[in-house]
Amino acid sequence: MGEKGILCIGLVCLDIISVVDKYPEEDSDSRCLSQRWQRGGNASNSCTILALLGAPCAFMGSLAPGHMADFTLNSLRRYGIDVSHVMSRPGCSFPASVVISNISNGSRTIVHMNRNLPDVTEEDFRSVDLTRYKWIHWEGRNAAEQVKMIRRVEEHNSGRGAEERITVSVEIEKEREELYQLFPHGDVVFVSKDVARHFGFHSAQEAVRGLYPRVRKGAYLVCAWAEEGADALGPDGSVVHSCAFPPDCIVDTLGAGDTFNASVIYALSHGRGMQEALTYGCQMAGKKCGVQGFDGII
Amino acid sequence: MGEKGILCIGLVCLDIISVVDKYPEEDSDSRCLSQRWQRGGNASNSCTILALLGAPCAFMGSLAPGHMADFTLNSLRRYGIDVSHVMSRPGCSFPASVVISNISNGSRTIVHMNRNLPDVTEEDFRSVDLTRYKWIHWEGRNAAEQVKMIRRVEEHNSGRGAEERITVSVEIEKEREELYQLFPHGDVVFVSKDVARHFGFHSAQEAVRGLYPRVRKGAYLVCAWAEEGADALGPDGSVVHSCAFPPDCIVDTLGAGDTFNASVIYALSHGRGMQEALTYGCQMAGKKCGVQGFDGII
Repeated sequence: MGEKGILCIGLVCLDIISVVDKYPEEDSDSRCLSQRWQRGGNASNSCTILALLGAPCAFMGSLAPGHMADFTLNSLRRYGIDVSHVMSRPGCSFPASVVISNISNGSRTIVHMNRNLPDVTEEDFRSVDLTRYKWIHWEGRNAAEQVKMIRRVEEHNSGRGAEERITVSVEIEKEREELYQLFPHGDVVFVSKDVARHFGFHSAQEAVRGLYPRVRKGAYLVCAWAEEGADALGPDGSVVHSCAFPPDCIVDTLGAGDTFNASVIYALSHGRGMQEALTYGCQMAGKKCGVQGFDGII
Repeated sequence: MGEKGILCIGLVCLDIISVVDKYPEEDSDSRCLSQRWQRGGNASNSCTILALLGAPCAFMGSLAPGHMADFTLNSLRRYGIDVSHVMSRPGCSFPASVVISNISNGSRTIVHMNRNLPDVTEEDFRSVDLTRYKWIHWEGRNAAEQVKMIRRVEEHNSGRGAEERITVSVEIEKEREELYQLFPHGDVVFVSKDVARHFGFHSAQEAVRGLYPRVRKGAYLVCAWAEEGADALGPDGSVVHSCAFPPDCIVDTLGAGDTFNASVIYALSHGRGMQEALTYGCQMAGKKCGVQGFDGII
């Protein structure tokens, strides 16, 4: 029996990326330096990083059939990501993001469209053979359904020894009330700078302290804060911090958060402590900001 | 023998249009209201308008083979636009524009990418049977080649009676030195507000007076100036003006200039005078700004 894998559940979409050296003024007509189509979506990007790091991983998400689906599946397969849990949704439109990537400062401006593609449901999730995975990560989306899926994993875990238990992580990235019901689920909860600021916090340390009462007993709360690094708080009550590791030249921050999450998950799932995992996450996210796309980070 | 047609030569590309109600701030992550893929490019858009107005018309331009080419050809054919002069260029990439269309003020921000698709050459143009056309319009691009094509039309015209002569129009839209060699070619020269401002002019009237010495004897110079309407100057030396006809609500200005050009060409080619053509151009461009896309203007 091979090594157990990591399953990431969430969005896969098409990122149509225009690289510029100056963010376009409204109503202007300019040429970009280059343009590329890239598979995107948080969970899908995190799978890319896990695969590049050498972890066996699988992606679970919805896909609308058509040319874009072929492009996406080919890309997932090229990285060796298991696509057996990808759910095809006939009659739906493929979600696409237009991204303006500014090489002068690394900013990525995202305009996303998701027309009518339903997210993965608890019913879809029932088909997953849980014994294949040691870690399952949810990108917070249809939170009520996702809570039900996590309950199934909790039932699976109960009564099992540490070796056979599945670690659960969730990402709360968007400032959407619905997503906050995910806080008390998951052994590791990633909360974004945007959500932290929405709650009135001004640093990662403030955020993990202030939001920690929302997570379940024994869990870790992790918050990355761009160039200020990342903080985590666990059951022992002490805040762990890592500084950021910015590259000499920041060229592309698209997916830096997904890189951070995947790298922390990778390190923790390989037995590292939180301090080491946090530092590794910040290092990999920094590397990612120094290259276009993901392939150059290893 | 049927009515002679209008041939437009220039770019066809894919416009990936995201409709927003607020222009995105740099480095933000937002959802758009809707997203659509639309055939674009100035000459291709002008053909759409001519076809909607009921004029027999043809598009001549380069196309890179693939899914995008199928989408584009289907769109041209759906409007009844003759595609027999479309030149397929194997091994090239399809040009695409990312457009952010703001319904709150009608602004359209364009980020264009044209990787390696060569423009139509004089050699390609030799295959065109000139007797089929009464008007040929060039979107200024590879100007040196375009001047050679226009010379071929001038030779065709010389010695022919007014009934058999082809009217030549050119559009000088981008602030590129190379394009300015097109000024002395064409019976009707469209110069954009951007180019006029580049030359230091502050109104359409100033621009047509100041740039008129560059056009050939007997030609018309036309300049549209957004909400200030348009001006034209012809051989009789008097400037003709039309005010703008803004809709109650400006929702989408993408292609308004192409609509103006096509409507002026349509009117002139049907025997109207410049004052009437200019007014018609402003009316149609105004209508276009009140609807998404082109289909609703008629």
